[in-house]
Parts: sequence; C-alpha cells; structure tokens
Amino acid sequence: MTKSDIAASFKELQGYICRRLNEVDKSAEFLSDDWKRNQGGGGITRAVSGGEFIEKGGVAFSEVFGPVTESMAKQLKLDGVEFFATGVSIVLHSKSPLHPIIHMNVRYFEMDNGTYWFGGGIDLTPIYIDKLKAKKFHLGLKNLCDGYDLDMYLKYKKWADDYFYLPHRNETRGVGGIFFDHLSKSEKMTKNQVFEFCIALGKLFPELYSAQLSTNNNDKVNEATLQWQMLRRSRYVEFNLLHDRGTKFGIYSGGRTESILMSMPPVAQWSYNFKPEETSNEANTLALLKKDIDWLK
Amino acid sequence: MTKSDIAASFKELQGYICRRLNEVDKSAEFLSDDWKRNQGGGGITRAVSGGEFIEKGGVAFSEVFGPVTESMAKQLKLDGVEFFATGVSIVLHSKSPLHPIIHMNVRYFEMDNGTYWFGGGIDLTPIYIDKLKAKKFHLGLKNLCDGYDLDMYLKYKKWADDYFYLPHRNETRGVGGIFFDHLSKSEKMTKNQVFEFCIALGKLFPELYSAQLSTNNNDKVNEATLQWQMLRRSRYVEFNLLHDRGTKFGIYSGGRTESILMSMPPVAQWSYNFKPEETSNEANTLALLKKDIDWLK
Repeated sequence: MTKSDIAASFKELQGYICRRLNEVDKSAEFLSDDWKRNQGGGGITRAVSGGEFIEKGGVAFSEVFGPVTESMAKQLKLDGVEFFATGVSIVLHSKSPLHPIIHMNVRYFEMDNGTYWFGGGIDLTPIYIDKLKAKKFHLGLKNLCDGYDLDMYLKYKKWADDYFYLPHRNETRGVGGIFFDHLSKSEKMTKNQVFEFCIALGKLFPELYSAQLSTNNNDKVNEATLQWQMLRRSRYVEFNLLHDRGTKFGIYSGGRTESILMSMPPVAQWSYNFKPEETSNEANTLALLKKDIDWLK
Repeated sequence: MTKSDIAASFKELQGYICRRLNEVDKSAEFLSDDWKRNQGGGGITRAVSGGEFIEKGGVAFSEVFGPVTESMAKQLKLDGVEFFATGVSIVLHSKSPLHPIIHMNVRYFEMDNGTYWFGGGIDLTPIYIDKLKAKKFHLGLKNLCDGYDLDMYLKYKKWADDYFYLPHRNETRGVGGIFFDHLSKSEKMTKNQVFEFCIALGKLFPELYSAQLSTNNNDKVNEATLQWQMLRRSRYVEFNLLHDRGTKFGIYSGGRTESILMSMPPVAQWSYNFKPEETSNEANTLALLKKDIDWLK
C-alpha cells in the first residue's frame, strides 16, 4: 500500500462521506473548491451550508508534499528532507441547539527516510449534553475500536479527553471521543489494519452524526437555547484558534486559510463572565464538561 | 518614581478613561470586577456594555508580581527571579458598523535585577475605512509623539503596521496606529518622560475614540453593513487568538481568562471564502488593509 493508494482512498472517503451526509440532510449544499499548493500538492474543500440540520461546515481532503519547511521541522520535530501528508477533516455546525457540533479527522504522514504514521480523531460537542446520546456515540466508537484491538478504545478515549480540553476555561470541548497520533503499527495491528481502521472510522462518521439528530423537539428551540448555542460556539472558536495543534500548525505554516478555518462556526457570541443559573440545563451541561467521565455507564 | 507610583498612576488612568468614556457614551454600563492573582497581585476589570456607541468592551487595570514562572521565562526571555507588571488595556467594539473597533494598552515591567521597560500601543479597526477619519487618528498620535521625540511617530507607526497584521489573511487589522515595547529611556527621553508619554497616550484615548464617532448617518446602517461588521469582527477574533502576543501569553500562563478575553466582540460571523463585490465599499476597505500607508497625506 503506497502513499498514493492511501491518498486515493482518503479522496474516495471524502466523496462517500459527502454523499451519505447529503442523504441525511437533503437540503444541505456542498460546494467544491479545488486548490493547489505552491510547494507541491493540493486539495478539495467541500464547504457545506444551508441544510435542514447542518448550518455550516465542511469536509476537506488534502494531499500535500515537498521539502520539509523550517516551521514543520520545528513544530513536528521532523527528521527528513521531503514529506508527504494526506487526510480528511470534517467539522459540522448544526443549526439546532439540540444538535451537536461534530469533528473528525484521519491523516497519514510519510517521510522520505521511510518513517510513516497515521493519526486521527473524532469528538462530539453537544450544546446540551444528553447522556443517552453521548453513550450512543461512545458505544459506536468502542465497537469500532474493539474490532481491531480491545485496548484501543480506553486509551484513545483518554487521549481525546486530554486533547479536546480548554485549560483556560477548565472545560472539555464536549463529551470527547477518540484521538490518536503517530500510529504506524502495533503488536496487534499491521500497517494495513491501521489504515483500515482510519477508513472505517471515516465511514462510521455520517452514521454517528445522524444518530445525534432528532426532528421532533423543535419546541425546545427558543431565544435562551439559541443564545447558549452561540456562547458554546465561541468556546469552539477559542479551542481551535488557541489550542488546536492542526489549526495552529496550518495557519503558521502558510496552509490554505479558508480550508483550515472552515471549522469556524457561522456565528459566535461572547458575553463577559456569563454564568448560567444554577440547576439550569445550561449549568447541567457545564458540569459534564469534565475529563474521565465514563459515558458507557 | 517607584513601581508602586506607576501602578497607582495607571489605576487612576483607568478611572479617568472610564469617566471620560461615560461622558461620551452616557448610556454605557461600566461593571467593576476586582480580582486577585494567587501568586501575587490582581486587578480591576471594568467591562463595558449596552451603550449608545459602545456595544461591548472593557477597560482593564492590573498590577501583578511574584516569581517568574517557567512560561514567562521562556516566552518573555526574562533574566531574573521576581517580576512586577502593571498596565491598562482597552478594547471597545462599537455598535454601529460606521464606528470602529479600537484598542489601547500601556504597560510597565520591572525585574528584581533592576531592569525595567514600558510598552504600549493603540490601533484603530474601522469596519469601513474613512481616509479623513484615519488621518485625524494618526495626526492625533503624531502630535502626541512629536511632543517627546520627532522620530517616534514614524518608528512606532511602522511597528504597529508590522504588529497588527494577519499573515494568514495578508491583511492589517485596520489602519494601524502606534506600537512600542522595551522602552526604558532613550537619548531624548528620561524614564520619567517615557512614563509621561504613556499616561498622555492613555488620556488621549477617549478623545481619539470620540473623534471617530458620528451620530447623523444611521441611514447607512443596514443588513449588508451589519453583516460586513460581523465578518470584520471575526478577523479581530482571529488576530487576538492566533497572533496577539499579549492574549496568547495571558492565556497560556494562566492569566484571568475573562479579563483577557474581554477583547472578544459581542458577536462574530464566519462565511466560507467571502469576497466582497468589486468596487463596493467593502472591497475599498479591504484594499486599504495594507502596511506602510501614509494616512497623514
């Protein structure tokens, strides 16, 4: 399996995910922007907007290569001259405050000295946490992981708790998910199986998202829930611009800004020192934005 | 002049600026939050909202001291054991898209080994650039600087152009202003004069802001200008969270989050790959978001 095979599979995965999402949300519009990178490679950005469920987001594919730049060498601690990187990245901002923000990424990195690794992750950011829906999400991930390595789910779930975390707010971004990096192969998985795991995670994405949607509780959408959604979206902005390694690396290394910042919400709101009322639904959600919660219970 | 004298003057400056701003905008509400820092010192945050002109913002004073932490030593390249820092920071988000976002900061830093320096800056971010108003702003700054050192305005104006810049957008944040750092004294200025310059800049702030306001063009506020304002505000968010050294240092070193992120706009909007129509007012403003423009012409 060459790097070109992997990139081709990731490109197919992008197409598959867009088709499945469009079946789930028939009124969503999927633009397609092809772009080239001056130093080598490029990508296809599918910006999504105006759906019944998806207000704004995107499904991005990229395949870039060329000389290792100074900022890459420094930030990624790379040992080599030429790199190759390909991946699929998704962020979807749901229209309804009863539906979550969701993110997924799978990526492959290879150096000319022969080293390679896969990385990826998925995490769910409900505006209001519903424990049953969080359980459904984590159960889907556990079932996927268990098909490859029984130790994987807990290890990668913990990694996600640590990664999708806002230290300046002492809050997790949401109910977490899984996160992994620098995975080339393991005692239990060949390179091919790691690759298959990434593809399987990508194919599971539309199912995990659609399982979070519901159509019969529009009565709970009101000014207060919409305002809470706007405040939670500003936390998402803070995480991505202050802490997310992928976003920061992309921006500082001269990546395509519009593809990287496709992850930004349609609208976000900041309010000085906002505190929800005690025992409100908003306060209940805040209390669950903690690491190390066992959502499978 | 001791560090305590300087802190006391900065605290008075905060009060003066709030009073003057409240004369300009009588309906604006100024909250007052006192906070303590565990390792030493604290501050007073005056969050502003709900004005006729000012939609959201703040005027913050802080006086913090204690052992130099690891992240301070690394990011500020500090040589010493104990530090003392005090300053006043302002960001105001105007309600009308015809009025600008404005920022100012003056600060003083002292180490136990005897080294000290002042820093500061002010910059203007109009939603629509009006060259006459930009000229008025820069003329006010030039007049101030010229009272101390005839070389200062051009030097600090260039520094502001370089600092208030979004490389990932290839845009300046607005029409710039002045920026300076590590200023202890110079051939032309004693420590006392540098301090006076900082205070004078602070006192000039309310006048510079009120000169940008106008009350008789509400007819130009419509859906299109309000949307452009929301998009420009998202650029402000991007600058502050991705590039602003003060914000990043504050957040990563465990500063008071609500005081640091007081700079965030009330609401911001992101739209994938938004391009204003050619020759529109929006496109004309974009074309002026460049370094090295002589606004005094």
